[in-house]
Amino acid sequence: MATKTATTNGGKLNELKAPPTIAHHEDTAPRKQAPVPLTVEGIAAQRAKAGKLVAGTAAYSDSDMFKSPHAYNQPKARRWDHLLSPEAVARKPCVLKKAATLLKKPGLLSLGGGLPSSDNFPIESLSMQVPHPPVFDHASIEIPDSDIVIGKHDIRDKDGVFDLATALNYGQAVGSAQMLRWVTEHTELVSRPPYADWQCALTIGSTGALDSALRMFCDRGRKDSILTEEYSFSTALETITPMGINIVGVRVDEQGLLPKNLDEILSNWDESARGARKPTVLYTVPSGQNPTGATMGAKRRKEVYDVCSKHDIFILEDEPYYYLQMPPYDKENSAAQPGAVDTSLNQSTEDFLQSLIPTLLSIDVDGRVLRMDSFSKVVVPGSRIGWVTGSEQIIERYIRHTECSSQGPAGFSQALMYKLLDETWGHEGYLRWLINLRGEYTRRRDALLDACEKHLPKDVVSWTPPAAGMFHWISVDHTRHPHAGQKTILEIEEEIFDSCIERGVLACRGSWFRAERDVEPTGLFFRTTYAAASQADMDVAIQRFGEAVRASFGIENNGIETGSPAKRRRIV
Amino acid sequence: MATKTATTNGGKLNELKAPPTIAHHEDTAPRKQAPVPLTVEGIAAQRAKAGKLVAGTAAYSDSDMFKSPHAYNQPKARRWDHLLSPEAVARKPCVLKKAATLLKKPGLLSLGGGLPSSDNFPIESLSMQVPHPPVFDHASIEIPDSDIVIGKHDIRDKDGVFDLATALNYGQAVGSAQMLRWVTEHTELVSRPPYADWQCALTIGSTGALDSALRMFCDRGRKDSILTEEYSFSTALETITPMGINIVGVRVDEQGLLPKNLDEILSNWDESARGARKPTVLYTVPSGQNPTGATMGAKRRKEVYDVCSKHDIFILEDEPYYYLQMPPYDKENSAAQPGAVDTSLNQSTEDFLQSLIPTLLSIDVDGRVLRMDSFSKVVVPGSRIGWVTGSEQIIERYIRHTECSSQGPAGFSQALMYKLLDETWGHEGYLRWLINLRGEYTRRRDALLDACEKHLPKDVVSWTPPAAGMFHWISVDHTRHPHAGQKTILEIEEEIFDSCIERGVLACRGSWFRAERDVEPTGLFFRTTYAAASQADMDVAIQRFGEAVRASFGIENNGIETGSPAKRRRIV
Repeated sequence: MATKTATTNGGKLNELKAPPTIAHHEDTAPRKQAPVPLTVEGIAAQRAKAGKLVAGTAAYSDSDMFKSPHAYNQPKARRWDHLLSPEAVARKPCVLKKAATLLKKPGLLSLGGGLPSSDNFPIESLSMQVPHPPVFDHASIEIPDSDIVIGKHDIRDKDGVFDLATALNYGQAVGSAQMLRWVTEHTELVSRPPYADWQCALTIGSTGALDSALRMFCDRGRKDSILTEEYSFSTALETITPMGINIVGVRVDEQGLLPKNLDEILSNWDESARGARKPTVLYTVPSGQNPTGATMGAKRRKEVYDVCSKHDIFILEDEPYYYLQMPPYDKENSAAQPGAVDTSLNQSTEDFLQSLIPTLLSIDVDGRVLRMDSFSKVVVPGSRIGWVTGSEQIIERYIRHTECSSQGPAGFSQALMYKLLDETWGHEGYLRWLINLRGEYTRRRDALLDACEKHLPKDVVSWTPPAAGMFHWISVDHTRHPHAGQKTILEIEEEIFDSCIERGVLACRGSWFRAERDVEPTGLFFRTTYAAASQADMDVAIQRFGEAVRASFGIENNGIETGSPAKRRRIV
Repeated sequence: MATKTATTNGGKLNELKAPPTIAHHEDTAPRKQAPVPLTVEGIAAQRAKAGKLVAGTAAYSDSDMFKSPHAYNQPKARRWDHLLSPEAVARKPCVLKKAATLLKKPGLLSLGGGLPSSDNFPIESLSMQVPHPPVFDHASIEIPDSDIVIGKHDIRDKDGVFDLATALNYGQAVGSAQMLRWVTEHTELVSRPPYADWQCALTIGSTGALDSALRMFCDRGRKDSILTEEYSFSTALETITPMGINIVGVRVDEQGLLPKNLDEILSNWDESARGARKPTVLYTVPSGQNPTGATMGAKRRKEVYDVCSKHDIFILEDEPYYYLQMPPYDKENSAAQPGAVDTSLNQSTEDFLQSLIPTLLSIDVDGRVLRMDSFSKVVVPGSRIGWVTGSEQIIERYIRHTECSSQGPAGFSQALMYKLLDETWGHEGYLRWLINLRGEYTRRRDALLDACEKHLPKDVVSWTPPAAGMFHWISVDHTRHPHAGQKTILEIEEEIFDSCIERGVLACRGSWFRAERDVEPTGLFFRTTYAAASQADMDVAIQRFGEAVRASFGIENNGIETGSPAKRRRIV
């Protein structure tokens, strides 16, 4: 049997790693899509051809080991030296790693790296109960089929691909070869990046990846600026601000970033007036954006990408909600209705992949996108595993940073996620899981939207049903407020928020997500989520929210009898 | 039964957390050690009194919930505002978190935080096979007693303290209440910090903690400097350098940092000559230092601390090897001899704790130490869990940073480590595990030292037997080299290194660890480790190393008949 060896150091030495064995391709090759797109079956065939993956302790690996041959039939990415921060430029490969190739010498005994012996690991095996494909529904989630087991020496004793002796020792910052293979294959299946030298690296989640990416591209001393949606993920803003990076909000509509506004900002940038350098980076959440819930269509993505190309902007594509793309909301046929049947569960995984809006990565001919994926919203947040995909140059810099910070995801997580995603579900099973989850989120979204239709005063409250993700963005028409002249938007927002709390519901104030805190807001919004509350709680919560809005606007309830009399009494 | 509640938000909202409920104490209280030191039994009594820990999804917690009353009977730490970086100063608590107290309102329904419902977590339970105390030896490690199980809803269904629904959802950056309790208790047991407002926070390991700590105290724009051992952990140096921080090496002896040299550097600092600000931070590994293996005695630690107090230096105490403190090496009674009996296995855990050299944290009356602990060397590296201990001010800043980067350790790791350390082993069992591990490392160290005694040419090679950790630092007397006049130290080092590789052994070049790369080295060293190789391999490896040194120095083998004739032939 053929074997694919990712081991280069006999499992002895963390610090000494082999240099990349990147396949090289002609830059003069015609720029075209891979002729035969990779499929789930194609992955199986590719693995069979490559042979068993052999990757021991701290084995070196990179995505080139796992990409299909078609991935290479494209030009290489551009170089981004002119955008990198002084910190990123200064990172050097570990001096110890330079000796890596030496470890290939047969019979070499290492007294080099301080890796503990797995003899001293007190964990003999881990087991896990999970539901199995092909069918996922609530029943199967409650009653798992069987236990999955990973032992300490499965590689040695059971011809296994991964084991605890490997997973729980020090590893490579890029992640284990076992998990890197899976994310590389999945990325090619979904995005097929249109350049040859793309690479993946595991992350400890997208919040961690964003912190690293910002430090790679932005610098306080250079007075750097970053673009983002005018309402943006508050943790991202709180990550950016202390670094001394200037945040520039781009106007959005129900499809997110407005390319025209993006172009205007960049075309008219006045460095001295702004006191900051023209932006070089865009941070965006294209699908189910947090907090607005907006999802860019394919055309919008291309337009945004083109403006970024025009102004040489590097794009951080943060896509935790990408797979939570849902069918349009139809209030007559809400998926939250009792007895509603989700026919999409029978969709083929190929059709599912086809139905997804193309990623920015998939149209990135320049290699100017660093895409951030995460398992947090689609498996569990507690794996603290995600991955980034970008050009070889950018991923190499990312890995250098990771070696000196997180060192990559936890071994417990890598072992368990590998057993779940690769050995138990496989790519087909994972896609089926995503199809199931999409149905679950559609039901949740529809329950919240049903409640909004039922309880909210539409003369002053409006919204666009989200097409992806877990957030619903509610617009309140402040111009129709009785005190519109006297009170600021923020004061009205606060009044409604306080009234909500008094009535027993918490919704997030829109102003908490403003990209530019010092600019006066022009709209009044609240962010709600359908991720966690039960259908019944969502109904009561939205009713209370509606009551709070009515109370602030002095609107009488329109007579729909919901909620307890005691609660309704409060309004009038 | 009394219950200790760490839950403040009904498991609904990650982003909204309650503010700290820090107990306040009079700064005028007499500065003295807690009258009754905490013991393992004391922890059990304390827990019984506090009642069951109730901490659901993303529950707020801090160390004050878990410290003994005696910990408070001391003055508070000093403030470090004048040392913090602009980045650290600029970090603000999440705007969403300000609403945290609101969630205490009974019956409040949250549409706030985007936490996935555990209904959609595909993992029903995890099980683990581990050896149980009180006796740990190789046999018990190979044959675990029983499985430990953690289910999805153990808190709800089994009156459990922790479960997967909680551990695998988003959590607090400080770590889960369950694990924070354990590390707080353990820290008080070992270090009893001599000020009132100390706190712990979980980390993703000490490399990640160091990256954060450096960004909290050092700034490129200020031309900041950091002190460290003249030979220092190469990954630490590679973390510091790209940040634009000036590294200053302090001379060391077999007990590590020389306080006199530290004082000289600081007393005579010339900012314009150095082109950098007088150092404000010391990074040190007091026990089993990497690479020199040096361990500071109690007196040395106090002297170093006093110099730091004199010059207002903040100390980063990195102690991955702290628990690997070993009895002195005795070549006549080497622990690696066949049939050697480790009588220390019968030591009481109280005696074990007493035998440890006091931590810098334990003498830190000012709160100027941020101590970094890690499970990597004593349980498994792959947990990616460690913890920091410092003053309330510093830990608060640390947590603010973690919220915007790693978000704390993986839930898989927290769940499994909690089940192992708290529910299965307990503090007593963990200390017994450390006693066992110390014996294991003593055997490994003695095997390497036995080989050195046997194979190395003592006329040009010398060493101090390490008293802790996993590294052995070998000094080669370059002045006695036949080409001492013509070749530089680095050239001789390279010659021996290359010769080692040719003979089939890898040892790390000392120059790879030099804190100041641009200063000419004054000594010639190699770092070896006894962490991973087998006893037999260590013997052969050191023999080959000795041959390489002899070949470079032109020394005949002294006639000790070891190794194959083929190998010995190479020498002459």
